[in-house]
Amino acid sequence: MTSTFKGLQHTAAYNSLLKLAQSPFDLTGTGVLDDEERWRRFSCTMGDWRLFYATERVDEAVIDALQAMADEQRLVAQFAAMRRGAVLNRIEGFESENRQVLHTACRDLFSASAAMAAASEEARREMDKLRHFLDELQKGKLAGSLGQPFDTMIHIGIGGSDLGPRAMLEAMRGLALSGRKVHFIANVDPDDTARVLAEVNLATTLVTVVSKSGTTLETLTNETLVRRALEVAGLDPARHCLAVTGKGSPMDDPGRYLRSFYMFDYIGGRYSVTSMVGAVVLGFFLGYEQVVDFLRGAAEVDALAEEADLRRNLPLLLALLGIWNHNFLGHATVAILPYSQALHRFPAHLQQCDMESNGKSVDRYGRKVTLKTGPIVWGEPGTNGQHAFYQLLHQGTEVVPAEFIGFRRSQYLRDGEVQGTTSQQKLLANLFAQSIALAAGRPADNPNRAFPGNRPSCILLAERATARALGALLAIYEAKIVFQGFCWNVNSFDQEGVQLGKVLAGGLLARIGLAVEEGDGVGKIFVKQILG
Amino acid sequence: MTSTFKGLQHTAAYNSLLKLAQSPFDLTGTGVLDDEERWRRFSCTMGDWRLFYATERVDEAVIDALQAMADEQRLVAQFAAMRRGAVLNRIEGFESENRQVLHTACRDLFSASAAMAAASEEARREMDKLRHFLDELQKGKLAGSLGQPFDTMIHIGIGGSDLGPRAMLEAMRGLALSGRKVHFIANVDPDDTARVLAEVNLATTLVTVVSKSGTTLETLTNETLVRRALEVAGLDPARHCLAVTGKGSPMDDPGRYLRSFYMFDYIGGRYSVTSMVGAVVLGFFLGYEQVVDFLRGAAEVDALAEEADLRRNLPLLLALLGIWNHNFLGHATVAILPYSQALHRFPAHLQQCDMESNGKSVDRYGRKVTLKTGPIVWGEPGTNGQHAFYQLLHQGTEVVPAEFIGFRRSQYLRDGEVQGTTSQQKLLANLFAQSIALAAGRPADNPNRAFPGNRPSCILLAERATARALGALLAIYEAKIVFQGFCWNVNSFDQEGVQLGKVLAGGLLARIGLAVEEGDGVGKIFVKQILG
Repeated sequence: MTSTFKGLQHTAAYNSLLKLAQSPFDLTGTGVLDDEERWRRFSCTMGDWRLFYATERVDEAVIDALQAMADEQRLVAQFAAMRRGAVLNRIEGFESENRQVLHTACRDLFSASAAMAAASEEARREMDKLRHFLDELQKGKLAGSLGQPFDTMIHIGIGGSDLGPRAMLEAMRGLALSGRKVHFIANVDPDDTARVLAEVNLATTLVTVVSKSGTTLETLTNETLVRRALEVAGLDPARHCLAVTGKGSPMDDPGRYLRSFYMFDYIGGRYSVTSMVGAVVLGFFLGYEQVVDFLRGAAEVDALAEEADLRRNLPLLLALLGIWNHNFLGHATVAILPYSQALHRFPAHLQQCDMESNGKSVDRYGRKVTLKTGPIVWGEPGTNGQHAFYQLLHQGTEVVPAEFIGFRRSQYLRDGEVQGTTSQQKLLANLFAQSIALAAGRPADNPNRAFPGNRPSCILLAERATARALGALLAIYEAKIVFQGFCWNVNSFDQEGVQLGKVLAGGLLARIGLAVEEGDGVGKIFVKQILG
Repeated sequence: MTSTFKGLQHTAAYNSLLKLAQSPFDLTGTGVLDDEERWRRFSCTMGDWRLFYATERVDEAVIDALQAMADEQRLVAQFAAMRRGAVLNRIEGFESENRQVLHTACRDLFSASAAMAAASEEARREMDKLRHFLDELQKGKLAGSLGQPFDTMIHIGIGGSDLGPRAMLEAMRGLALSGRKVHFIANVDPDDTARVLAEVNLATTLVTVVSKSGTTLETLTNETLVRRALEVAGLDPARHCLAVTGKGSPMDDPGRYLRSFYMFDYIGGRYSVTSMVGAVVLGFFLGYEQVVDFLRGAAEVDALAEEADLRRNLPLLLALLGIWNHNFLGHATVAILPYSQALHRFPAHLQQCDMESNGKSVDRYGRKVTLKTGPIVWGEPGTNGQHAFYQLLHQGTEVVPAEFIGFRRSQYLRDGEVQGTTSQQKLLANLFAQSIALAAGRPADNPNRAFPGNRPSCILLAERATARALGALLAIYEAKIVFQGFCWNVNSFDQEGVQLGKVLAGGLLARIGLAVEEGDGVGKIFVKQILG
């Protein structure tokens, strides 16, 4: 299959799209966004989610050309191959991780025939361990080393072991088990640990340490600080700490951890939320059944994402609308704007998942790319952002494609009418109003009050932020990112770009460790100017 | 003075800079970043802060040209005029807010002769009210309507009334008064209020409601929901609620609020952290003296920012390095990367302050701008980001200028050695290593492991995240944003771009309110497709 990989610039559709991009659809035309037919035509439903993209600068010709590009690049076939175990984490002809990409397998637990049965079997085994563990907790069979029941979890991880689980846990606060509390520590900044230790009762606290290699500097440092605090409190760390790590890693040690849950080398950190990386902390906070629903939502999307018809494949559509905005209309960034306080950390997770996957400069054959690859991904919740950076979205000189996300009903289901409407109605009205305002614009005699319009956006809408809908949302974005990587023909599953900083930091630390007073270059400057 | 406003493209220095930008300084050259002289030469100290900019793509010729541009545009003179009450919130020849810009006055309380005495006098009066109020709280003279002492505050605001106070409060968690808790509500999403109400004991809670106009939709809605909850709990809202609002606004009502603190129309929301908007909640959390220190740090920077020599004016330097990266080297965004967990929400505040100020398309005479104005501002704390989006920073096709922020010592002063170094040393080593890695790059035989380098960044460093250092940091960035706005010749103090969305949302809400079943255009679509 590798011989067929090609970047979008080598497709016949590429030139059609370049031509179409010279005069993209005009959203500011009279009545364009009042046209109900346009809203219906440019929408797509998948499971719990509906995508509205009438407010993108597209017409049928653009969608047809994007479909042709997807077909030429065999994007869906590559996705299907990924789910079935193809070795896609690879650079042809050069040393690389050379691994399968099977985050989809860890939720492929609900169909009679899993796409990659062996991997799903491993996932099922870990899920069984988790259910058993959560059962024991629930029934009070497990307790802290002074005998008190656990009600708190500290989750220690960084990057992919932190952002996804944190974003999803925050997204489900309204669904939590009564009395359960969770804190996260990620940063090597000692204040991150100090702040959490100041807030918890360690006697009732489980500490989940997450590192696939079992060697992540920040995570092991923070684990050490927390273990010392446990000891100072007269507690036995081995009875308070859980490991989520690779089988056989230095952390896979029953003498030091109450339980070990395994992650596998075919799941990258940033795609690991539905593995034990997310499942342990979500299970503690929400209970096992919610985790199952979360995985079910993701699994449904994975299966549906093998649909070849672009107009019926929501994540593929989202991916190619992004390519249209980035590579053809020339916009460098994309804003993720959830109209849902529950999703307040979801943009940070996507920022990681997307930028670490597709922020690449060589293709899958090690050749320098000639087109722009991954955009800069950023965002904050609405309506908050409307009182902040939306000024630039509407009237700035940078055009920012936006992806709005919303729900018809609130999560807590506690709402009230003020001035004739509920808060949820206000929230949704604002979401749609912003999308329409960005697209339609408005002329004005006062030039400072004119809105140019033609700023593209789309809207993802579901009924309510349930575990299943959130699992589906996560999988939609994971698939979007993977599809875009295929489009740019980059390896979306490695992260060589994080290495140099690590090496240099290691060098600086060695110098500090050796207490070098005089030295050359960076070390000298560092020691004298920074610490001196 | 208005006749002298001109955009940077009309300066003589502009063409010199364009020429210099054709071959910007090469940071990948052998030994460039080992050159101690370069690090010393390209650094600047102001109060508690030191800026290192050896890792920007600049040499003396660029700095000289930027100085010439600053002089031609009279940037420092405009800043001085602003502090003295010039009406700079204005579009010449068109209807506009037409106001002074005096956020600097509300901290100009420490010199014998304030730059704008009348405004500083008003600020001092509010500070006196605050001290008196906090004293009464401390001495137990004030209590909830059931007689219990207050230990919790809910701060309700949005945009400028939320992001700055929240960022600064988070930044000072390690300095808080024992036992004091603070929660924020901003989003009209009912889940935001539901989540906070589920966590607090209302009997011991003060509710600070912040809205200059006293009419902000989100804030009044959330206030109403919280007042209802107070009533349900058998409490008297008038004895639990504080107002921070304009004198004479609908919220300036002693019958409904325990106290009113005033904000003034010459202070924009996004610049209001050092007014009562931030001072009330910070004072409750940290005590009055910390607020004074915070203001003092800001005031010191304001005064020093009138220095004409670019090399000695830190915020001006930061502003013009940003202009160099944005307008001459062509980078659309800027990343704010604090190596400090305390500053985890500071990028979100700057995103607002910067993008709402300078995301503009007409100049101060109402003419369409011809150059790019404000960049997209985004960021997350390091070292977390190193395991996430830094992949794109190092190896992506978008170049992202970065501003690193760090402290020599931690805030909590609780640290420990692991593997021979403290966490704080690890944090700082990583900060400098990232800046150097982005700049220097590294060749490699494996193309996927090569780092191109020449990615510009700078580093802001202070001793510790004290109230004074944080006040100074805030003022450095406020001044940077103002200087850049002068450079682009835009009005950095209005926000017309937020209006259209409000109007459209109002229209949609009216239709919902009227329960329109059939209608035309947007309303019809909205009602049928979204709520139907």
